[in-house]
Amino acid sequence: MEKTYVIGIDLGGTNTELGLVRSDGHIVARTILSTAKYTDFPTFADDMVKAAGELCAAGDPETGWQGTVNDLQGFGIGAPNADPNRGCMVEPPNLKQFKGVSNFVEEFRRLGVTVPVAVDNDANAAAVGEMVYGGAQGMQHFIMITLGTGVGSGIVVDGKLVHGSTGTAGELGHNILIPNGRKCSCGRYGCLETYTSARGIVQTFIEVRHEMGTPADVDEHPGWIGSEVTDAEVHSITVGIASNAGDPRAIETFRRVGYWLGIACANAVTFSAPECIFLMGGPTKVGEPLLAPLRKSFEEHLLNIYQGSCRIEMSKLKTNEVAILGAAALVN
Amino acid sequence: MEKTYVIGIDLGGTNTELGLVRSDGHIVARTILSTAKYTDFPTFADDMVKAAGELCAAGDPETGWQGTVNDLQGFGIGAPNADPNRGCMVEPPNLKQFKGVSNFVEEFRRLGVTVPVAVDNDANAAAVGEMVYGGAQGMQHFIMITLGTGVGSGIVVDGKLVHGSTGTAGELGHNILIPNGRKCSCGRYGCLETYTSARGIVQTFIEVRHEMGTPADVDEHPGWIGSEVTDAEVHSITVGIASNAGDPRAIETFRRVGYWLGIACANAVTFSAPECIFLMGGPTKVGEPLLAPLRKSFEEHLLNIYQGSCRIEMSKLKTNEVAILGAAALVN
Repeated sequence: MEKTYVIGIDLGGTNTELGLVRSDGHIVARTILSTAKYTDFPTFADDMVKAAGELCAAGDPETGWQGTVNDLQGFGIGAPNADPNRGCMVEPPNLKQFKGVSNFVEEFRRLGVTVPVAVDNDANAAAVGEMVYGGAQGMQHFIMITLGTGVGSGIVVDGKLVHGSTGTAGELGHNILIPNGRKCSCGRYGCLETYTSARGIVQTFIEVRHEMGTPADVDEHPGWIGSEVTDAEVHSITVGIASNAGDPRAIETFRRVGYWLGIACANAVTFSAPECIFLMGGPTKVGEPLLAPLRKSFEEHLLNIYQGSCRIEMSKLKTNEVAILGAAALVN
Repeated sequence: MEKTYVIGIDLGGTNTELGLVRSDGHIVARTILSTAKYTDFPTFADDMVKAAGELCAAGDPETGWQGTVNDLQGFGIGAPNADPNRGCMVEPPNLKQFKGVSNFVEEFRRLGVTVPVAVDNDANAAAVGEMVYGGAQGMQHFIMITLGTGVGSGIVVDGKLVHGSTGTAGELGHNILIPNGRKCSCGRYGCLETYTSARGIVQTFIEVRHEMGTPADVDEHPGWIGSEVTDAEVHSITVGIASNAGDPRAIETFRRVGYWLGIACANAVTFSAPECIFLMGGPTKVGEPLLAPLRKSFEEHLLNIYQGSCRIEMSKLKTNEVAILGAAALVN
């Protein structure tokens, strides 16, 4: 099969990374732009297309391929608040400099790009990346849940991303898990995100240590969180480290997070009966302290007719590749 | 366009109704079998095919069409615990006489039926009926929620029923709405069904009247539920009548049911972003006492990006036609 090439773009609040991706999932080369330094979208789009052109000109030393952006199979862009129908992002909350609608397709066309330009949010891109290059190859029904600052999701039904009537389906982070529960950044209460995002983990740890207190021997255990760490200084990563170091309050924190996420996963199964739910993102790296209670809760809360039909797995893509590969996989 | 004909079969615990359905959605004729009297599935299948043959032989007086079962476009069957992939039902809880797997396709083939035989659960059939003959014509994304003894659902994404990897996706009645909430017949706790089914309505009324007591002037109001009605005698239909008659406890009951169902509908939107959620079934007939608080709760709990994108509507099919038309619509 002839090798084809895609530019995958991971657009973040701080940096935007571009990668030249070969059809076998190899990232040939990468380059980074500082998103934060741009004050207007057309200049930013201009620099993205230029950077992509440089990656294409340098080409793939292994195969000898070289070209221009119009020799690509296309551009795939993972971006916040993406509208895949229009190929744009709309008022992304972490990119306040790009007001209104920032349309990638229109800007790229203006800059002479004639090949396809596909845009979607990062969780949807991750789901497609898993399907094309990762653990979901050949699956018709699966869900990707991304844990990070927020909680995102990409849902695949019959081998296709679910976009819904608005283009923005698949926001399981804002499924209300506990009616009238924790206040969410979206303005409502009890969203899954408030319990299982990095912020939710921190809040849970703070609650747990207020309940359980600080063990007398906390200073004898490297990695445990001492009383000198104020609530405002607790970070989800240090809670993760503490759980792996055996801090009982961090272990209890992830037990609760796993319990909540297990209910959410069981609920998702009543919707689309996926064969697998994949997880990715920083908080999942804690491993068993999260995964063991998560799987236990999932089994406990799964409706009997689905028992044994759906497993929970970590994403099979590398952390430093998933965003680029996911974006690249949007082109097809 | 040439008119074609389908036999739609609504298989219930007490009765099984067959209808000859013309392609324009007109039910030409119907016949009823007593499901309860059959002790084995092959005899039951035999009588279904015979009854269908009689409907075909009598034909459609309006068009002059007459034929045999093999002149049909096919058979569509709405049945409990259906497995659409295999064309069977599996251990339906209300039909204990049919043990194990009852395979419609195999039995009908044995009886000489050569045309397509499609089987699905009644909520999925209702969704397809709404899409082919009702208010969802032309919609790519919608959800049907059926309220009755239980709560069922049929989910349409990209114009197709979501069946998932198991064939049994779309069981929103068993979405856990309130973790560790009411005990459900499925053995778990807090399922939507325990709050919004006929049984859930009764339980809520009982709770509300224990909280609010019986108004002193209850006997002056026709339709209100008096203290002589024991908890065991409360029925969802009488609660519905009482709410329309102004019984404050019945009104409060449906306010709570609408509140819960509104959260469930808002959660469903985060999944597939439908343009409409249709409701059908006995408890929905109470009308505004349910619909007004439901729509209020739905708007309150809907994530901002979906505001205005999804409405809640009653099924546009007639109550006494939806089951037959839904079953018929499974054939296509």
